[in-house]
This record gives sequence, C-alpha cells and structure tokens, in this order.
Amino acid sequence: MFIPKRIVEEKLKQILADDIGLGDVTASAVIPANLTVNAKIIAKEAGIIAGIEEATLLAECLGLTVKAMVTDGDAVKNKQVLMQVSGNAQTILTVERTLLNLLSRMSGIATKTRSLTERLEGANVKAKIAATRKSAPGLLYFDKKAVALGGGDTHRLHLDDMVLIKDNHLSIVGSVDEAVKRAKAHTSFAKKIEVEVTSTKDAVIAARAGADIVMLDNFSPKQAKDASQTLRKAGFSNVLLEISGGITSENLMEYAAAQVDILSLGELTHTVKALDISLEIVKKSKPVVNR
Amino acid sequence: MFIPKRIVEEKLKQILADDIGLGDVTASAVIPANLTVNAKIIAKEAGIIAGIEEATLLAECLGLTVKAMVTDGDAVKNKQVLMQVSGNAQTILTVERTLLNLLSRMSGIATKTRSLTERLEGANVKAKIAATRKSAPGLLYFDKKAVALGGGDTHRLHLDDMVLIKDNHLSIVGSVDEAVKRAKAHTSFAKKIEVEVTSTKDAVIAARAGADIVMLDNFSPKQAKDASQTLRKAGFSNVLLEISGGITSENLMEYAAAQVDILSLGELTHTVKALDISLEIVKKSKPVVNR
Amino acid sequence: MFIPKRIVEEKLKQILADDIGLGDVTASAVIPANLTVNAKIIAKEAGIIAGIEEATLLAECLGLTVKAMVTDGDAVKNKQVLMQVSGNAQTILTVERTLLNLLSRMSGIATKTRSLTERLEGANVKAKIAATRKSAPGLLYFDKKAVALGGGDTHRLHLDDMVLIKDNHLSIVGSVDEAVKRAKAHTSFAKKIEVEVTSTKDAVIAARAGADIVMLDNFSPKQAKDASQTLRKAGFSNVLLEISGGITSENLMEYAAAQVDILSLGELTHTVKALDISLEIVKKSKPVVNR
Amino acid sequence: MFIPKRIVEEKLKQILADDIGLGDVTASAVIPANLTVNAKIIAKEAGIIAGIEEATLLAECLGLTVKAMVTDGDAVKNKQVLMQVSGNAQTILTVERTLLNLLSRMSGIATKTRSLTERLEGANVKAKIAATRKSAPGLLYFDKKAVALGGGDTHRLHLDDMVLIKDNHLSIVGSVDEAVKRAKAHTSFAKKIEVEVTSTKDAVIAARAGADIVMLDNFSPKQAKDASQTLRKAGFSNVLLEISGGITSENLMEYAAAQVDILSLGELTHTVKALDISLEIVKKSKPVVNR
Amino acid sequence: MFIPKRIVEEKLKQILADDIGLGDVTASAVIPANLTVNAKIIAKEAGIIAGIEEATLLAECLGLTVKAMVTDGDAVKNKQVLMQVSGNAQTILTVERTLLNLLSRMSGIATKTRSLTERLEGANVKAKIAATRKSAPGLLYFDKKAVALGGGDTHRLHLDDMVLIKDNHLSIVGSVDEAVKRAKAHTSFAKKIEVEVTSTKDAVIAARAGADIVMLDNFSPKQAKDASQTLRKAGFSNVLLEISGGITSENLMEYAAAQVDILSLGELTHTVKALDISLEIVKKSKPVVNR
Amino acid sequence: MFIPKRIVEEKLKQILADDIGLGDVTASAVIPANLTVNAKIIAKEAGIIAGIEEATLLAECLGLTVKAMVTDGDAVKNKQVLMQVSGNAQTILTVERTLLNLLSRMSGIATKTRSLTERLEGANVKAKIAATRKSAPGLLYFDKKAVALGGGDTHRLHLDDMVLIKDNHLSIVGSVDEAVKRAKAHTSFAKKIEVEVTSTKDAVIAARAGADIVMLDNFSPKQAKDASQTLRKAGFSNVLLEISGGITSENLMEYAAAQVDILSLGELTHTVKALDISLEIVKKSKPVVNR
Repeated sequence: MFIPKRIVEEKLKQILADDIGLGDVTASAVIPANLTVNAKIIAKEAGIIAGIEEATLLAECLGLTVKAMVTDGDAVKNKQVLMQVSGNAQTILTVERTLLNLLSRMSGIATKTRSLTERLEGANVKAKIAATRKSAPGLLYFDKKAVALGGGDTHRLHLDDMVLIKDNHLSIVGSVDEAVKRAKAHTSFAKKIEVEVTSTKDAVIAARAGADIVMLDNFSPKQAKDASQTLRKAGFSNVLLEISGGITSENLMEYAAAQVDILSLGELTHTVKALDISLEIVKKSKPVVNR
Repeated sequence: MFIPKRIVEEKLKQILADDIGLGDVTASAVIPANLTVNAKIIAKEAGIIAGIEEATLLAECLGLTVKAMVTDGDAVKNKQVLMQVSGNAQTILTVERTLLNLLSRMSGIATKTRSLTERLEGANVKAKIAATRKSAPGLLYFDKKAVALGGGDTHRLHLDDMVLIKDNHLSIVGSVDEAVKRAKAHTSFAKKIEVEVTSTKDAVIAARAGADIVMLDNFSPKQAKDASQTLRKAGFSNVLLEISGGITSENLMEYAAAQVDILSLGELTHTVKALDISLEIVKKSKPVVNR
Repeated sequence: MFIPKRIVEEKLKQILADDIGLGDVTASAVIPANLTVNAKIIAKEAGIIAGIEEATLLAECLGLTVKAMVTDGDAVKNKQVLMQVSGNAQTILTVERTLLNLLSRMSGIATKTRSLTERLEGANVKAKIAATRKSAPGLLYFDKKAVALGGGDTHRLHLDDMVLIKDNHLSIVGSVDEAVKRAKAHTSFAKKIEVEVTSTKDAVIAARAGADIVMLDNFSPKQAKDASQTLRKAGFSNVLLEISGGITSENLMEYAAAQVDILSLGELTHTVKALDISLEIVKKSKPVVNR
Repeated sequence: MFIPKRIVEEKLKQILADDIGLGDVTASAVIPANLTVNAKIIAKEAGIIAGIEEATLLAECLGLTVKAMVTDGDAVKNKQVLMQVSGNAQTILTVERTLLNLLSRMSGIATKTRSLTERLEGANVKAKIAATRKSAPGLLYFDKKAVALGGGDTHRLHLDDMVLIKDNHLSIVGSVDEAVKRAKAHTSFAKKIEVEVTSTKDAVIAARAGADIVMLDNFSPKQAKDASQTLRKAGFSNVLLEISGGITSENLMEYAAAQVDILSLGELTHTVKALDISLEIVKKSKPVVNR
Repeated sequence: MFIPKRIVEEKLKQILADDIGLGDVTASAVIPANLTVNAKIIAKEAGIIAGIEEATLLAECLGLTVKAMVTDGDAVKNKQVLMQVSGNAQTILTVERTLLNLLSRMSGIATKTRSLTERLEGANVKAKIAATRKSAPGLLYFDKKAVALGGGDTHRLHLDDMVLIKDNHLSIVGSVDEAVKRAKAHTSFAKKIEVEVTSTKDAVIAARAGADIVMLDNFSPKQAKDASQTLRKAGFSNVLLEISGGITSENLMEYAAAQVDILSLGELTHTVKALDISLEIVKKSKPVVNR
Repeated sequence: MFIPKRIVEEKLKQILADDIGLGDVTASAVIPANLTVNAKIIAKEAGIIAGIEEATLLAECLGLTVKAMVTDGDAVKNKQVLMQVSGNAQTILTVERTLLNLLSRMSGIATKTRSLTERLEGANVKAKIAATRKSAPGLLYFDKKAVALGGGDTHRLHLDDMVLIKDNHLSIVGSVDEAVKRAKAHTSFAKKIEVEVTSTKDAVIAARAGADIVMLDNFSPKQAKDASQTLRKAGFSNVLLEISGGITSENLMEYAAAQVDILSLGELTHTVKALDISLEIVKKSKPVVNR
C-alpha cells in the first residue's frame, strides 16, 4: 500500500485540523511560543508497531524533527523508545494526542494480526489471516495498512477492487451460478471474482461457473475441510478458498486444519485494542518560568 | 452535540465515497439497475444503540427510504430489528458496510459506556463516567456522540474548548501554580481550566491558583479520597475532581468510593468492541433472473 | 461502475463550479431571473451516447427537470433529441457548456470504442477491446465509464486494483521471474497480477511464476500468435493474454487474428474526438422584452 | 495565466490522489522502498511541449529532483529528452502515468494550436487562433494554458470574465439590440461584451449597440469578409470580429482571407490528439534482487 | 453575478460548519429535539437589504421553510420584517448568527453603496461608484454582490478578469507605454486593459498605447478634470476614466465634477458598518417545559 | 489561539486561490517570469498590528522570503515598515492584495480593541473587553485572533465551546431557571454555562441555578451596577457578570463603572475599519525592459 508521502500528508493534516478546532488553548496559554523541546514516544506495553511512517510524516510536515528508533512492523518491548521528536514545544503538545491515536490504533491492529499469523505459522498452517471491510468509518487506509504490517492480508481495499458476491446479492439474484455468470459477463478481466456460499454443493457450482475465490460462510472447520477436499477432487485446484464468519482469535486454531487458503476475521479492524503508547517531554534542567 | 443534518451529511458522504473508490463493481455487475428492495438492519447481540441518526441520514441522502424502529440510546435485544431500509437495490448493497460500520462502532461505544454508568448508578455513586481524546483518528464527533448516548460525559471535544494542563505542559512550565496562573491570564473567561496533578499537595495548589477542575493522575482510590477530603476541608467545594489514568472497566468500582466527580477512561473510545449488527435483504418470492 | 448518484453529484458540482468562476455575467445581465424555458439536447452527428446519467444528475441537482430520450449506450442518429431539459433559464444557460462537454467527451469515447468492438464482433473475434490509464488528467471515472458503455473493458481503474508490472518495474527488478514472485509474496489474494513481457520466452516464465495475465508488449500479430500457442501448449490455458502498444484503430484487425484475450489501446482515452452535441432553447412565440 | 506554484500544486496533488486510490500495489510489492533511481521523460514524436511546469511542480512536490531539458512552448524532436527525474523509485513509478497524461494532453493541444498559428503566419494573416470553452470537463486551466503555449488566444477562461451573448440567449431575449443594451446596463465596466450574430445586418446592429466584439456564427469566408467590410465602412473599426462555428484545421485557410480578428475552433480542446511521450528508468548496471 | 443555488449552497454550508465546530452545545442541551417554531428576521435600522437570497438558500438547505418579505436591493425601514423562518427549533437557533452575519455585512455594504450612488444621481452625475478588491479575506463573492445590489459596479471579481497595471507593476516595467504594450501583446482579446497613471501626460500615453481604461491615481478633482479634457481633446473618447485613491464618502461630491466614468472606493468593502438585523423566535402561548 | 502553521496555511491558500481565479492576467502579461524583487509592507497610518504571522505564513508558503520588522500586537506609526518581502515578482504582485486584506482587517480589529482596552486601563477598570460571534462570515479565526492581539477576550470561538442561553432560547424554554437546569443536566462538565437575563431578579435566579456567567442584556450602567451588588450580596461572588447589547465605543466609559467582569461589543468584529497598509516594490535602478 504505497502512496507518496505528500498525498498521505493531506489526510493526516485533515485529521489533525479536526482535532484542534480553532486552536489549542492550553499550549497557547501556558507554553512559550518559541521554545524548542525534545520528546520521546514510548511503548507502555509490548507489541507490534505500526504507524511510524504516518506519525513521522505528520510531525515532519509540521516542521518537527523526527528520529524513528523502530520501523513499522517491528516487535517492541514495554518502555522501548519508538521515536524522538524535537522542535517547537507548542506544536509538539498540540499534535501529541493525534500522533498517539494513530500509532496506538494501528499498532493495536498490527499486534493482534501478528499474534494470529504467528500462531498459524507455529502450527505450520499455510493459510493467510485476512481482514474484512469492517473497519472504523473512514479509516480503511490506516486499518488495512496496519493489518499488512502485522502480516495479514488486506483483502478488498474498497468496493472497486474485486467482485465479492455475498448473501444479500444472492438473495436478489437467486442462484450462485447466475450471479457468477453475471459477474464474469459484466466485470473487467482485471478483477477477481469471489462468491460466498453456504454449502459444499454451492462451492462446486461457484467454481464451475468460474469464481476465482469461494468464500465458505459460517462453515464449521469440518465442513470447510470437506468442501476443500470436494473441490480439489473436482479439479478446481486453482480456486482459492476463504472461510469467514464466526472466526475469532479464540477459535482460530480449530479452523487451521480446514485446509483453506484464507481465514478472515472482522475483529481485526472492528474490535481494536489500542496499544498503550505515550509521549514524554524530555526533562529540562531548568524550567521556563517566563512566558 | 447538535449539528444540522445537512452538515453532518457531508462527512458521511465523504466516508462513503472513500469506501467505494471508483465504483461498486459487484452491485454493478450482478444487481439490476432499477430494482427496488426492502432490507432490515438487525442487532445480532444485545446492546445500546447509537448511530441510528447518522445511518438514517446517510441512507436518506442517497434516496433510500428509512423507517427507524429504535431511537439512539435505546437498549436492544439480540435479533431486534433496528431499521427498515427500502429503495434501489444497488444503492443499498453499496452503502451496507459503511452503514453497519457506523452503527457497530457507535453502538459498541454506547454499550460499554452504559454498562459502566449503570454500575455506578447501581452503587449510588454520583460520579460521572467520561471519555478522553483517545478516539480513533478523525472520529471524534462520532465517538463522543456515542459516549453521550451511553450516558457518559464527552469531556473536551477538541483542543479549543477547555484548557487542560497535563504532565508534559507542567514539565515545561515547572510548577502547577505557574501553569494555572498563565492559563488564567491568557485564556478567555469562556473556558474552564483543568490541571493534572500527581499529589494532594499539588491539588491544593491548583485549586488555590484558580483551576476549575483538578485531574488526579494515576491516584489510587485511597489517594483520591484523601485528596478529595483535603480539598473539601480547605474550602474548595466548587472545584471539580477528575480521576484519570489506569481506570478500566475491571477496576472501576474500586474508584467509585473515591468521592470524585468524574472518572475518565481512555478505553471508552480507544479500545472499542463493535456491536454485531447486520443487514438483510428481505427475501422476495421470486428471484430476479434477468439483468 | 456503480456509484450512488449523490456521490457522483459532488464531482459534477465541482466541475461546474470551476467552469463558472464568480458567476455567469452573461446570464446575469441579459436573462430575466425567474424565467422558465424548455431546451433540447440534440446530437449533431451519429454516434454512441454516454454521459446521459451524469448530465441528468447535474441538471437535476440544480433544480432542472430532465426527460432523457435515450439511454447511455444507445446508438443515436444525427439530429436525434437526447434529452429535454426545462427550468430556470439562467441555470440552463449557465450549465449548458459543462453538460455538453461531459456528453461530448463521453460519447466520443463510447463511439470509438463501439466501432472497434463491433469490428471484432463482425469478424467473430472473441478478444476484448480494453482501455489503458492514458486518460485526460483527473477524468478516469468518466473516461472509463464511457469505454464500458461502448462495450470495452475498463482495465485498471486506478493503481490499487491490480498489480501490473511494466517495463520500468522490470528494469529495476531485473527479471520477470523475480518480479512476479515478489508480487505474489507481497500482494493480497484479492488482486490479479499482470506482467508485461517482450518475448515469448518471458511470457512462459511469467506464466510459470504465477502471473494471472501476461501483456505482450509491442508484439507483431504473428509474434503474439506464436506466444499464445506456446503458452497454450505449455498448459497455461488459464493465463489471459493482453496485447498492448502500437495497436490503433487502423491496424486493429491485423491483431484480431493473434488469438489473445485483450487488445488494449491508449487512444481510446488519450485521443478523443468529441461527439458533436448541442443544446437549443425551444423557440417561444413571444420573446421576453422586459428584464 | 500565472498562478503561484503552491496553488497549482493543490490541483495536481488531487489529480494524482484520484489516480492512485488506496495505493500503488505494484510499486509497493515489487520495488524496494528506499531505492533511488534516475528516469528520463522522452518525446516519442515531434511536437510543441506544454506541461513541463506542471510536471515539474508535481514531481518536485513529491520530493523528486527534476531537471527540465526544455521549456514550455519549445518545439521538440522525436526522441528528445524533455526532463530528467530522479529520486525514490516507488514514487517515480507511481506518478509516471499522471505526469505523462498531463504532458501528453497539454502538448497535444499546444502542438495543434501551433501548427495552425504557423499556417496563418506563413500566409501573413493577422488573425488570431482562439480556443473555446469546449474543453475536457474540469480541465479548463490546463487546456487553456496549453492553447496559450501554442500561440493561441485563451478566449474566456470561465463564465465570469466576459459577456458572450449566444444564440440561446438571443432566442430568449428576442433581438441583438436589446441583448447588448441589457448587457451594457447590467455589467461591470471591467468586462467586454461580445455578441454572436447570424447576419451582416445584425453585426452592424451589435456594433451600434455597443458590443466590443462581434462573433460571426457559421458565416462562410465570403460572408465574413462582407461583414468585415460593411462594419469597417460603417466606422466600427474598434469592434473586433470573431468567426466561429464550422472552422476546422482542414478549412482554416479558407477563412484566413476573411479579414476577421479571431478564428476560434472548438476542436483545439474538445478533440485532442495526445503527443506521445514516455518515461524510462535509466538502466542500472546491476539489478536490485533483494527486496 | 449569477451562480446556480446549489453551487453557492456549498460555500454557505462550509461557513456554517466552521461556525458550529463539533456541535451547538446550547441548542442541544436546552431545546427539545423535535420542536417546531416560527421566527422573524427583523431590521433594527433602516437600510438597503442584501443577502436575502443567500440567507434563504442556507435556511432552506437545512430543511427550514422561508418566506422572504423583501427582495435583495430593497430599502427597508427600522422594525421591518425581512424574512419569516419556520422549522426545527434547534436548527434555527444554530444557524441564527451565521444567517445574521451574512445579512448584516451584505446589507451594510449595500446600504453605504446605495447612499453614495444616490448622492451622485441626485447631482445628476453620470459616473459610477465602483468597489475595489479590498474586501474581507475570502468574501469577494458576497462583498461584490452586495455592492452590485447597492447600485455600484463590481470592478474586477478576481485577478483573472481584467488586466490592471498598477504602480508596482510600473515600477518594475519602467514605463506606462511599455507596460500597456506588453499587456496588449500577451493578453487575450477577451480582457480589457486598465492602467494606473499619476499624470495627465501618462494618461495620454496610456490611451495612445491602447489602454481601454485609465485609472487616475490620487488625482485631485481638478487634476482629474484636466486629464479628462485633455484626453477628450486628443480624441480618446472611447477610453474610460476611473479615479481611485483617496476618495471617501466624505469627499465624494468634490470628485463628482471631475467628468470621469468611475469613482472607486476601497472603503465600500474594507470598512463595513454592519446593518443591525436580528432574529426573534415568535412567542408561543405555552412554553415548552419538558425536554 | 495556537494552530500549527501548516494547518493555518491551508486556509490561507484557499483564500488566495479564490482571489486569483484562473490566473493573474496582469502579472502574467507584463512582469518577467523569473524576476526577483524586494518589497516593503508599510503602515499608512498608526495602529496596532495583527496578521503578521498569517501574512508571513502565506508569503513563505509561496516561496517568498519574509523579514518581519514588527510583531503581532505591536503599536506602529504611520510610514513604519512592517515587513520586507523578497522573491519572485509575479508571485509578490499576485499575493499583494490578499496579504494586505488580511493585515488591514486584522490590524483594524486589533487597533479598535486596543483603544478600548487602554481606555479601561486608563480608568483603572478591571473589566475585560470581549468580542461576540458577530464576525464577517467565515472569518472567526482571524477576527478572534485579532481581538486577542488587541488585548480583548475572544469569548466563544464557535458554538461548541460554551453554553450560552440567549433570549431566543429562553423564549422557547420559558424560564431562566429551567434553562440553566437543562444545561447543567445535559452538558459536559468541561463547558461553562452562561445565561442572558433581562432583570436583576433573573440574574439571581440564574446564579442560584448554577450559571457560571450571567449576561446582563441591554442593562443601563446603573441597572448593571445594581445587579452586580445584589449578586455579590447574595453570595455569588464566583459568578462572572457580562454586559452586552448597546455598548459602543462611544458609551463604553459609562459602563466602566458598572462593576461587571466583561463588556462585550459586537462592533469589534462586525463593523471594522481596515487599517491602511500598503505594499511597495522597492525601486530598482534600472527598469526591466525585456519580457
């Protein structure tokens, strides 16, 4: 997910502007206007870091000097210094919370994603962990990037990058076969076509109609394995299998044996535990007493 | 938090536009262009609902007809129908996930907030639960509104509505007394002034310097109670006491006895569990087979 | 390419606003403010119409009443009435040129695309005509939609919906094999992977490495046919073949025999001949002499 | 058409952002993040260059280093290097197509405009070639600037900079005389007033009513010459004459003898042939094999 | 200055959004959500009204019902009702100040402009009163429209609609003659050319070089009259004369005899006295006691 | 009112862009493209300067070099140089008027505010001068900042930062007591609550109900003093008293004796006299004759 910095910067400045309103009345009232200070951004618990690039970008575009001590995707320990920021004191204090909100949410997503991908790797399971579109409103870019940094698959970035025929589409169209045929007839060759099915029989129909990916919706691990084997036997070895619905960090390993390609979890982005990260002004020997 | 609908609508359309990209290739390919359908939005677990107003606004501004079956702030049961939406099928399917993301996040925040406010009420504690600025990036309006619907206090909406002098400000200024004095000298009479302290002694200094609110940072419940009593004895009965830092849903009731006015928790908005809500196209007797 | 009308409307209003500046000084000075008139939008030459949906949307969102007499994608004759528009005279005259610019460009693109797709169909060639990203700056949505209405394939909508490894990427990476491997390792399963090759040998390497689509760059028709047959023999019947570079409306039919899946032409969108379309105020029996 | 760079930059960044969507998945997957490369932008056919300033601006604002080898308005040969761009490889590859689309369209417009202005100069004709408002939607600034670089006149930039009374206005108002009178009464002295006429008689009426410019609509060259002579004889030597409608690059020279001041052609901007320009990464001795 | 309503609406909504911030905490806390009320907008002093169209637009786009009792440009008396507004009480109270700020500023500008134009008319002076570009930052559209409603001339709307060569340009170029020649050579025929001069001699040079308008900068009334007569004698009867610099409402009539065409005053828009206008909720028989 | 520069810059660039339209046709036609010049910004009358920060920001973000000779809030004399600006001549001339409009309006506001605050100080009155929300539409940030630089209180920045219950709210709610109770029940502890009253009796009711600030609406100086003394006697010494309505620069000193805390005047921002400030290109020894 590469976007040139100056383009991402626009989104970040917008988020900051909303956070400020008509001005930081605290920094304005109590902090001298031309004071330069140093600050450290510190992890207050262990986790996987994401958002260093965005935090750096935001700080730098405000004229602050940033030294990143870690790289996005790194595992960090409690108390580890993530970034050093120096520059205008009012600016640092004004941007502090916005920076931390970005880092904490993205790192929280990356941390959970990584813990799940590592569990699968530890069990020698090839399947990928994937996110869904169940993000916080308007935060797809940041949420998906954090998933990728945690080792997960971003899945669809928005509604234009793959056809994904779900239950509600099928309820209107009437059959998996018809829906996939329509998709193949009316979609660019540049897009993959995925369809959600609720039975092994429909999984085979989908594959036969030409789906690139079949999503097994709310299958038990055993049902998923059956579907997988049936499809392989029927010669559809190119068709990817995704399992979705009801998978959580708790029951993930039960699905690990299902021999599917992708395990997708809404909770990666809809139920996020922020990583605890804070900013500390580095103590100065002599406080500033005149304003 | 009242904003006229047409102003909120602009933010909602922007969120939707980002979610769509250059077009919903699935709805475009498999759903007839002029088909009208009915859909229900249904809670898949019990909770407090928030976001009905925003979801209605977004759906209506796209030309859909909405019948809200519940009101923001209502407690709903599993399987309860929240809204009925009817109109153009492609439009409903395109907006589905954005609508649900709004409702799920806001309802998740309202549900947790309500559970905490009810616990305090159950124990006859007068203190208010409050949110912090630790929201998802760019979502302050929606996150804070959800907190209010759950019965919590929104606290600062952004950086311009109250002076809040925190540890980093104090580290620069050098003393609570000096910081509050600067704030009083350089801030409009229209703003309250709050200051964070780490000792009962500083709490008294803050009150004496004229702070409207004193935030007890990382105090134990016992320390908080001492501070409260000391301040009351010193005659500062008008000064509000907020306790913040380290309070979680787990240890909340330990703090309930601390005789403070406000208990603030970052997790209300930084660590959200989305409420499970889904949209179902109401089955039609005859599927649409021609596109 | 389905986007809900209210979202597309925003782009259209922006285009109109830029076209107006601080006000239409002509309509303001010579046309009575509350006059209602009827107008017809008329094709001045035969072609395939595109942009009726956008023109209707723009006119309606300004409060005008529109009756579309044709549907996007229709073939129309010289002098055929495309739309009837009625409402405030100043508004119609102010939006006239913006409406016509949209319709003329989109219809020009659709007309050329259709003429090419019909030539292939006439010769019983299965290959699809596709556009490239060589559009007018900022007009991807309108240009691509016009291609689709002309029967062409939209190809990539922007940089996020497919991996397309081109000569410049290969010049950096060093080999087709390595580039495709990196793409497969670092891209979501939701994306297809296409790679541009300059020899039949590289086409086979690309297919073997797992490319979904192989683009034959500047191949002669004969070379393309060889590549196609070589790949089929090697068992890569699932791999799509696109031929690109140097194909024009003049030499298209020479490439038709090349047995590829997609023929892509930059000129569909970079060298557009606008369809001649005009707007006429329907004559009134008595001119308005007082202002 | 001077706009400070930082203002134009905003439009350019918006065009690029639309072109990218949520990220360049190709550059992200196959190109190392911190690689620096050099690239050349090369004309693939002869023409007049326009857009160097915009391309430079866009590249520089992304942090790339640009060395322009030609100046806007220069005539270039096939294979001539136009710009050298160096910097981050992912950034160059992401911006490549947007840069080229800008350069190709603007240069295509400048090239055609110049070929027409040179034909008139070659025949010692004083009349100016002018563009109309028939541009691609939303691209007035870039299209008009390209016309100017080709030696053409930009005509109206948008609806606020001159009164231009056309057939549809006249059909409502009823007479040329009345329309010009209204314009003079209700328009700032800062604006010129132009009116379209369909007969020599109306041309004289327009001039007498005070029009600054008279547009001869769909006049034959002979009719135009008659109108010109009639007006000159009637003493309106200050009134400019524009001829418009039906002039094309084919029949331009027939109109050259008509003794008018301005010859305007819609095709300059509505039917553009992009100039063929491409970007090449300068080969490196050793490919980058590790990512 | 005609712009379709839906385009102006966007600017008005933006102004309102900035005025609200994250919500009207007063209306939200004390006014019932679904209450409908009536309100009157009333002049608190006599003047010329401007902004009725904008105020109506803003109120209507928020869902309020508006009945305008006066038309823009009308002279109103103290206590006269200008508009009746009815609808949601919270919405009316939230938009109240923004509506009044628009009306008060625009009416203040129109009132002063009208008083000056009437003074000239009363003295049978033909010269027009004109505004300059000295408006409040970002308010050119509203300020210029108010001038027009007061009977003044809008002059340049922005920097693209006329060439106006001023002292600083001349100081760089070196001579009036050279500057006008450059302007004529490098500007579209669609633009007028005005040049500022400081002596009668330069006024003649300017006219001879082809300026459409000559601005007499800081001339005394007598000097202006001399310049006017000299130019008329020299045969430049088509050249408009503007006098600018140092004209105020106090000394205006001294300049009235100067026989120039335009008298421009910066103070029309840079030094505005708002017209006193207020909004009153129409008393209800029974107050609303439950919220 | 501290906002990081890069955020304010966005607003300033937007204002400039609106002022330019599609390009400065004067600078473009008469000024050489690559010429560098020096300019001085000079006060043409004495006053208090505001807007130096914004003017510097705008000039610098366009690539100009700025040397500020005064600081915001300074008192300056007639002919004093405020800033030196050097850089591209076209850019300086294009931004000139926008820069001066910002400086003139903000300095006009600061100058009037300072003259009032100094009058109070001269009379040893403790009360603060405050602005209202009666600003020019959309200019709250700049207008309020100018008030602060003049020594005034900014009062509410927008509708979200304090509860202010006015006559229209009371007319709906029915009583001061009920309105304040609702406000206290439904507003965050972070906000102050102010209520407007029309009698001393209501002032006491408001204080008793818990208002932080009581606004005496259209009280005479004597009535205000009575209200103040009554409240002090009743023990409400913490409640701030604001007097508003009918206070002008003329009658200000009559109110000075009223023993209130805040004197607010709409005219500070709704009726502004711009400070006369101009920009001069520093004369060069040799004019530039070639373009």
